[in-house]
Amino acid sequence: MSMAYKDMTPELRRQEYDAVKTQYDALKAKELRLNMARGKPGKEQLDMVSDILTVLSRPEDCIVDGVDVRNYGELSGIGAAKRLFADILGCRPEECFIGGNASLTLMYDTISKAYTHGLLHSEKPWCKLDTIKWLCPAPGYDRHFKITQSFGFEMITVPMTPEGPDMDLVESLVRDPAVKGMWCVPKYSNPDGIVYSDATIRRIAALRPAAPDFLLMWDNAYCVHEFFGDYVPFPDILALCREAGNPDMVFEYASTSKITLPGAGVSVMAASVDNQAYMQKLLGIQTISYDKVNALRHVLYLKDKAHTLALMKRHAAILGPKFRCVLDHLERDIAPLGIASWQKPKGGYFVSVNTAPGLAKRTLELCREAGVVMTGAGATFPYGIDPNDSNIRIAPSLPPVGELEQAMEIFCTSLRLAALEQLMA
Amino acid sequence: MSMAYKDMTPELRRQEYDAVKTQYDALKAKELRLNMARGKPGKEQLDMVSDILTVLSRPEDCIVDGVDVRNYGELSGIGAAKRLFADILGCRPEECFIGGNASLTLMYDTISKAYTHGLLHSEKPWCKLDTIKWLCPAPGYDRHFKITQSFGFEMITVPMTPEGPDMDLVESLVRDPAVKGMWCVPKYSNPDGIVYSDATIRRIAALRPAAPDFLLMWDNAYCVHEFFGDYVPFPDILALCREAGNPDMVFEYASTSKITLPGAGVSVMAASVDNQAYMQKLLGIQTISYDKVNALRHVLYLKDKAHTLALMKRHAAILGPKFRCVLDHLERDIAPLGIASWQKPKGGYFVSVNTAPGLAKRTLELCREAGVVMTGAGATFPYGIDPNDSNIRIAPSLPPVGELEQAMEIFCTSLRLAALEQLMA
Repeated sequence: MSMAYKDMTPELRRQEYDAVKTQYDALKAKELRLNMARGKPGKEQLDMVSDILTVLSRPEDCIVDGVDVRNYGELSGIGAAKRLFADILGCRPEECFIGGNASLTLMYDTISKAYTHGLLHSEKPWCKLDTIKWLCPAPGYDRHFKITQSFGFEMITVPMTPEGPDMDLVESLVRDPAVKGMWCVPKYSNPDGIVYSDATIRRIAALRPAAPDFLLMWDNAYCVHEFFGDYVPFPDILALCREAGNPDMVFEYASTSKITLPGAGVSVMAASVDNQAYMQKLLGIQTISYDKVNALRHVLYLKDKAHTLALMKRHAAILGPKFRCVLDHLERDIAPLGIASWQKPKGGYFVSVNTAPGLAKRTLELCREAGVVMTGAGATFPYGIDPNDSNIRIAPSLPPVGELEQAMEIFCTSLRLAALEQLMA
Repeated sequence: MSMAYKDMTPELRRQEYDAVKTQYDALKAKELRLNMARGKPGKEQLDMVSDILTVLSRPEDCIVDGVDVRNYGELSGIGAAKRLFADILGCRPEECFIGGNASLTLMYDTISKAYTHGLLHSEKPWCKLDTIKWLCPAPGYDRHFKITQSFGFEMITVPMTPEGPDMDLVESLVRDPAVKGMWCVPKYSNPDGIVYSDATIRRIAALRPAAPDFLLMWDNAYCVHEFFGDYVPFPDILALCREAGNPDMVFEYASTSKITLPGAGVSVMAASVDNQAYMQKLLGIQTISYDKVNALRHVLYLKDKAHTLALMKRHAAILGPKFRCVLDHLERDIAPLGIASWQKPKGGYFVSVNTAPGLAKRTLELCREAGVVMTGAGATFPYGIDPNDSNIRIAPSLPPVGELEQAMEIFCTSLRLAALEQLMA
């Protein structure tokens, strides 16, 4: 049946409902256990990069630039790792701080230190302020929102457009001195897969926030993560902010979690040299150094940006068919029905589906009952509350294509059933 | 000259000064560059354990207990790593949280979370309190003191005795509800190398602090780190606190930094199951998981407590002669002069020298001028201020014995010169 559900007569709808319900029950009877919940790379990707386990094996190879990476020291990381990330991000090596296996931790630490000690341009630690407001382009990344929620910030939802966050609204909101920062995933945004336009990025870099310590959290998680087509260049946000007179406004983050091993990668925090000096004084209290052995493994394995991009092409060869499967199912099974819309991303780790209002929770409930676990409804909005109960994040990277086919069949059937239930209620 | 300096006649002192000064100038003229500043393992130790780099090499070995350590997940760590640390610490696996390469970071995170969110039994986050006091047995570890100083806590010095902290004083001080915690290094304390007596440990476990969220920071950094003689067993502080009715008072920390590779080890935070549940909710905001690949490397390399103790004997074979060198020099060159005293530790990473009052800074200044870098004077006291200007921490692990001989010659000569300068002033 390829007619928009809203255009159907009640009788046609009843027929469609019966057909979809029968299909759903048959799928449920298979008692499958499928997972499209998180952006976890699949086993094939892990195996592909596991040579990294043996790339550093001899004691004599552990000494680079006069530093023995096995010992304590070098708080900000080894020079070779800074040069690698600067190459990838387009910034300067001295603007890079090399962290542990999670850029999320570097992000948390930045906000935690703003809260406990203040940032470079803070008048006082944020814990001494009554109200802190924070801009959250949404749908967005649930783990971002949980950090700012955890510190009690008042999160303000900013709608996403196909060009990035609604900048008219952002420019207006930052006039409030209580607005202390904003989350951004500029390339292949989580979950929509939107690439911020150059114009949007320039407007962000040129913001004139009332707060002197406004913190632009630039999570470049998917900076080299194309799964369809060629690498898409992106501007250096540090340079743009510097040129716009905001050198210390931005902290940029990235990691190798989806380049090498998710559980054992290396992260980077890029920021102005002044920010680095300030933050490293604070970071030096909590650690002597991050894992430089693993950083060196990554330098030896990834080599440089060009070599990293070649590796990402091999990831794309695995991921592309999975995203193709998701998009094909949506195009074929959902598009004609007028019950949902979605972006068609060329990179990142997600496909974000916006259903007709009020269908997300019920769709995911039906999925769960039929054995498909997905990211919880609402997770992509501040406080986990999607005002329209509409956004669903599909994470197709983990299951093999065969399982994904089944999972998408269950997803599309569940969405159709939820839509019909609503229309017939 | 083997007479106590204070018993010398002015003329003898003048002769001694001339002799020591000549010796010092000769040493200075060698323009050596020697480092006894930090407890860094030496290259021989690093080379000895570098097989850990290759112990995990095949993709199929990365899956343990059904968990692929290469991927995201398992916030609290892999079961095998918990069992290893529980074996070493004498606690239960479910009481263990496996961190990254630095136990210092786990300690910082615990205090930071007390500050931003409060602990399990806190009425409110500590940042909402006017005054927080903290007990600092001293001399102690400078990096501990820097954490509590960084959060603005009022640090109270508690004298160390050969049995551990002065417990009469501690028991009295914890009656103040503003006293929120205490630093402890129970085995081979940094820097004295004192092992807390069983009686002291039991009194600590049975404390009745006025603060319901009193935080006993139990840094068991040197739990298996004997360099002379056999392994010295220690009680499980978690069990002792539990039995004393204080199950949630203590957090214990340890790491493999001085067992395998200092820059690439694995850390553990042990605490009651209730504390684990509470803390993991907060830790789950800042990371998805720590590096499980490296944790698995450690499990494969260290195997269990017995195997770890055997490895520590091999470290002792390297470290023992270095500590012997330090103690022999002190015994021969300093003991007869009555200008300093020291413990004779059997484990840990330091020898702590207490000079006659007022000699520490000057001694280290003379050392520095003669090319020997040491931990700054005062570093072992809160705020970096040693009220007697007396404590000097010697860290002999990094230099080869040959260099150490020279460094100790310079140290002893500098100390003698400083003492004579003072007596003749």
